[in-house]
Amino acid sequence: MSRFRLAVVGAGRAGTVHAINARRWLGDAELACVVDTDAEQVRSAGAELGVPAFASLEQALAGDVFDGVVVTTPTFTHAELAVQAAAAGKHVFCEKPMALTVEECDEMTAAAAAAGVILQIGFVRRFQPEFVEAKRRIDAGEIGEPMIVKSLTRGPGLPPVWAHELARSNGMLAEVNSHDFDCVRWLAGSEIERVYTETANVKGAERGVEAADFYDNAVVALRFASGALGTIDGTCPADVGYDARVEVLGSEGLLVVGEHRATALLEIRTRGSGEVPTYASWPQRFEWGYREELRGFVAAAVGGYEPQVGPADGRAAVAAVVAANRSWLEGRPVELGEAAVP
Amino acid sequence: MSRFRLAVVGAGRAGTVHAINARRWLGDAELACVVDTDAEQVRSAGAELGVPAFASLEQALAGDVFDGVVVTTPTFTHAELAVQAAAAGKHVFCEKPMALTVEECDEMTAAAAAAGVILQIGFVRRFQPEFVEAKRRIDAGEIGEPMIVKSLTRGPGLPPVWAHELARSNGMLAEVNSHDFDCVRWLAGSEIERVYTETANVKGAERGVEAADFYDNAVVALRFASGALGTIDGTCPADVGYDARVEVLGSEGLLVVGEHRATALLEIRTRGSGEVPTYASWPQRFEWGYREELRGFVAAAVGGYEPQVGPADGRAAVAAVVAANRSWLEGRPVELGEAAVP
Amino acid sequence: MSRFRLAVVGAGRAGTVHAINARRWLGDAELACVVDTDAEQVRSAGAELGVPAFASLEQALAGDVFDGVVVTTPTFTHAELAVQAAAAGKHVFCEKPMALTVEECDEMTAAAAAAGVILQIGFVRRFQPEFVEAKRRIDAGEIGEPMIVKSLTRGPGLPPVWAHELARSNGMLAEVNSHDFDCVRWLAGSEIERVYTETANVKGAERGVEAADFYDNAVVALRFASGALGTIDGTCPADVGYDARVEVLGSEGLLVVGEHRATALLEIRTRGSGEVPTYASWPQRFEWGYREELRGFVAAAVGGYEPQVGPADGRAAVAAVVAANRSWLEGRPVELGEAAVP
Amino acid sequence: MSRFRLAVVGAGRAGTVHAINARRWLGDAELACVVDTDAEQVRSAGAELGVPAFASLEQALAGDVFDGVVVTTPTFTHAELAVQAAAAGKHVFCEKPMALTVEECDEMTAAAAAAGVILQIGFVRRFQPEFVEAKRRIDAGEIGEPMIVKSLTRGPGLPPVWAHELARSNGMLAEVNSHDFDCVRWLAGSEIERVYTETANVKGAERGVEAADFYDNAVVALRFASGALGTIDGTCPADVGYDARVEVLGSEGLLVVGEHRATALLEIRTRGSGEVPTYASWPQRFEWGYREELRGFVAAAVGGYEPQVGPADGRAAVAAVVAANRSWLEGRPVELGEAAVP
Repeated sequence: MSRFRLAVVGAGRAGTVHAINARRWLGDAELACVVDTDAEQVRSAGAELGVPAFASLEQALAGDVFDGVVVTTPTFTHAELAVQAAAAGKHVFCEKPMALTVEECDEMTAAAAAAGVILQIGFVRRFQPEFVEAKRRIDAGEIGEPMIVKSLTRGPGLPPVWAHELARSNGMLAEVNSHDFDCVRWLAGSEIERVYTETANVKGAERGVEAADFYDNAVVALRFASGALGTIDGTCPADVGYDARVEVLGSEGLLVVGEHRATALLEIRTRGSGEVPTYASWPQRFEWGYREELRGFVAAAVGGYEPQVGPADGRAAVAAVVAANRSWLEGRPVELGEAAVP
Repeated sequence: MSRFRLAVVGAGRAGTVHAINARRWLGDAELACVVDTDAEQVRSAGAELGVPAFASLEQALAGDVFDGVVVTTPTFTHAELAVQAAAAGKHVFCEKPMALTVEECDEMTAAAAAAGVILQIGFVRRFQPEFVEAKRRIDAGEIGEPMIVKSLTRGPGLPPVWAHELARSNGMLAEVNSHDFDCVRWLAGSEIERVYTETANVKGAERGVEAADFYDNAVVALRFASGALGTIDGTCPADVGYDARVEVLGSEGLLVVGEHRATALLEIRTRGSGEVPTYASWPQRFEWGYREELRGFVAAAVGGYEPQVGPADGRAAVAAVVAANRSWLEGRPVELGEAAVP
Repeated sequence: MSRFRLAVVGAGRAGTVHAINARRWLGDAELACVVDTDAEQVRSAGAELGVPAFASLEQALAGDVFDGVVVTTPTFTHAELAVQAAAAGKHVFCEKPMALTVEECDEMTAAAAAAGVILQIGFVRRFQPEFVEAKRRIDAGEIGEPMIVKSLTRGPGLPPVWAHELARSNGMLAEVNSHDFDCVRWLAGSEIERVYTETANVKGAERGVEAADFYDNAVVALRFASGALGTIDGTCPADVGYDARVEVLGSEGLLVVGEHRATALLEIRTRGSGEVPTYASWPQRFEWGYREELRGFVAAAVGGYEPQVGPADGRAAVAAVVAANRSWLEGRPVELGEAAVP
Repeated sequence: MSRFRLAVVGAGRAGTVHAINARRWLGDAELACVVDTDAEQVRSAGAELGVPAFASLEQALAGDVFDGVVVTTPTFTHAELAVQAAAAGKHVFCEKPMALTVEECDEMTAAAAAAGVILQIGFVRRFQPEFVEAKRRIDAGEIGEPMIVKSLTRGPGLPPVWAHELARSNGMLAEVNSHDFDCVRWLAGSEIERVYTETANVKGAERGVEAADFYDNAVVALRFASGALGTIDGTCPADVGYDARVEVLGSEGLLVVGEHRATALLEIRTRGSGEVPTYASWPQRFEWGYREELRGFVAAAVGGYEPQVGPADGRAAVAAVVAANRSWLEGRPVELGEAAVP
């Protein structure tokens, strides 16, 4: 039985995580090649992983070397790459955020539909066991109707330079909190209807960020179409590690998802003080989910299923992020249904 | 050595908690009498506690039977009772919220100052060990400057009928979340500057609440004068128990305060599922703190110290609650410094 | 209503804990005096607590200054002091271990019975909420019949010098693990029938312990009359703090009692590592229980009830400790029913 | 690059776990075939996994269809199968316990050495992240010298019928607690020197176990060559799920490894009571470790490395189990160095 061949586009951090998983932990798939416009970086990645390296998706598409592509490049390149891959008949796994605008999302969606290929978005939490189980319980009615849905993400380090500018990245709410916007919508079982955002820039200056519209802290108050309320908060850089947790209070119960402790270990070496390992990074926090989502992508592509996280999910998160940024910029609550808001 | 004599005004739930603590768990004080306008309830309470019962504060003041008073009646009565007691030279412990308006707070503050008596507000979390320790660590600079401060309170049951109406109670944000408004301000070490509120009324109708402006869920986005951000959320009735937790993310660290588990116990009786005791009620959640705050009041009164939570703290929380309600009613962020906002 | 007057004998650490609790946290009792043969220590303690100080129990008994006595002196003095107090008609609270031998226990029991006074033993865990709740659940049949009962205690520092010698203290199994022997018997609802002990002396020499039969680590395998099995382990000094936890596996469920974390607080200041407060000492670990047991003693004495932990409990723990030491010395399992074993 | 081909012998529960992992989660290996003497079971397993099925190892060896074998059959068949596979030049992964006697272990070890193949024993905990990290910390000296090492395993269901008899299985201490004997030795960094065992048979009769020497509960007191002490306890069936935890108290610190909660989830649906998912079974508890150990086996076989858990480890655990059973049967502590003990 031949294995599904994956090309990973983008030899940065996310690309490396996916490439290693494809190489090492999938029985039904294999890593076919890596692609990056940085010639040195991609040559090194290819050598390390033992697969061919290409300087562009175009070159990789020239030979019939892969069946599906994993897009992990900067956000502003997603639409072009995804459309190009789909047009060539390749299944597409696209990292979050799906794109910069809902218009781009619509182009990508149309391209995949036209080509008859899968377009899966990298909302990895939907494959992480505790999140999956939470969703199952909510859908089973265990906690009644969601009333309050809260989600947060904190990342340890400064985002890459291209992500400092709002115009090229939609800022931290997109780069970091996209996961939360998707997650609260998924768990609430309802679309986000209104957002209000407060932001702060605490460490930008001292870390050499020059972008004028940079922020590294945000809180967002949410109202869902169902009438449920919510909050999202994000901080990046948080320095002390990666943190992603969700809480859903329903009319009949509470679900707390995720915790700080990374490993079932407690060490006490000082009188009166114990130490627990916590999450240092997102690859560690969602190590299990990253393997599962890639396996899910392969299964959907091979089996011809709808992916578990599709383009409509990606688009909804982009719309919410755009509205949340607008709320901040205009100092007022913003309805997602407003004419000028996508 | 004679003991400090305490009168408890209000024979409801909070009054009973304080009366029992005064009776049973204080070495330096004693319960002198109970006061309530409900003749039957106060007679019964007095009999049970073995102390005289009075139908009004005025009657209790007629004899020299107490040195300090614990006010636990509905919010709209606080100002009058506190002023009356202070005028009679009695030290005053007033349950939260301090009053309905900042004007009332100012009257109470002035009355206590004029009489030279202590006026302590019942923000019990400031006496609860994990909150006290969190404050100590923040003040010691352990987590750097607070960037995000989040606090929540959920109560199991419907508030008393008088508290359904905004006009007589300021609603759930006052009755339940006063604690959070005080707590985030205390832990952030900064005044709340701007608030934005979303509310929902999920269970009101089905539980027979008739007040038009009733809400039982709220989220509030906060900005502090320091530039820090925050959120508060509240739900009451939450049915599944009492829940009060805080999280402070600083520039150099994170502090998580409180947990769901009420007792250091885990029981597994079903394959694949364990049970932990959780907090059923606020007297249980803050059992330790309630004893400590009363002891603190007595110590301050006897020793002539400033109370650990004074009238300025009570006033600040009232101002924030009023602004948060206004934000909800007007659908916009509200600055606490706005002219029309106290 | 006059308060129950308590004399605390022994101005060491346990005595100080009880004296402060009697002074500060009991509504129905008061600290009447402190007693210690160390003249300087007792004078200082009395001054600090604001009560009279006596150099001997005899002197304290000379005036009618107290109603009950709390014995916190070294083990080898318990029997004499308890008998003396009982003979004078004083109620007796005796710290664990009850005494050195079952013969001494029998004398104390007889003296209390003859005088018609209460004799309560300081097994504080029986008053600590999580232990009380565990017992309640076991008795309610929630976990079926206990099959495995495990208990451990670790203390941070070296015991006092008199406790280094087996002859005067019965060693660590008595000084530290008495609590465990009582606790497993109480929770198992069955007498200990057979014990097997292994010990080690790891830190004794380097800390200057000269007693030849000193040990600072022990594990004990247990069989109960019911057929249940168990283990006890102890380490002292453990340096890193105080640790006391129990686990009961029943035919229908598991109960885990106690945890390492002392306060509901988590602090993350280092990437990848969080810090939780742990118990530094036994007064901190059982702070709640110490207040409750003293209140329980007063209630039993005043109300004429049987104490919740009586002399038969103290005796059973002494018998088990003596058998466990013998197992170690003779290198074989020892039946508690053996002729030569008490 | 061709993948390493794995044959799984034994189509029971452990075999299925390994077969699925080999099939689904390994990039460098593939499932080549399944083998079982139960014709119906093996046909069904092969069909489900999409690989050839054989009725005996001999038949599977007839064609050159695999490079390594995973032995998951009953203990009394391990030696013969491992020797047969090794003689045919196949690498061998053998589930625990390695064999029934140390003599069998020696034969297996010699056969593998003679054939120049890998012989890895299935002590999966050595591949489970929290155990691996604990070992790393101990070896780094973080907790000083181990003083007390405790390990427990509880399994939910009755072992298979062949495992009821001591003669064919060495009983629960082998079937269930082999993991603990290996784990304490590994973490203590010292050989087990003396054991004392107590056992009980609580549920055997009511569950229809006829073997006279069956036990379903055991506690073992341990002494290590280093002077450290320890305990092991086991219960099977425990009904309420699978439980495996370790605690190592060193001269300078404590390490607690593992916990009850299976998923980072807390659900509160009842006032005063929360629910956490716990481990229902060993495949769930060590899901991660099972994938890692198989990957480790393949890496060692392909790379020509020593396996991380070799035959000497398997033999040491068998020797300890045999001594522990003997202790129980003879009612005395048993030295592992005794002449008659292997």
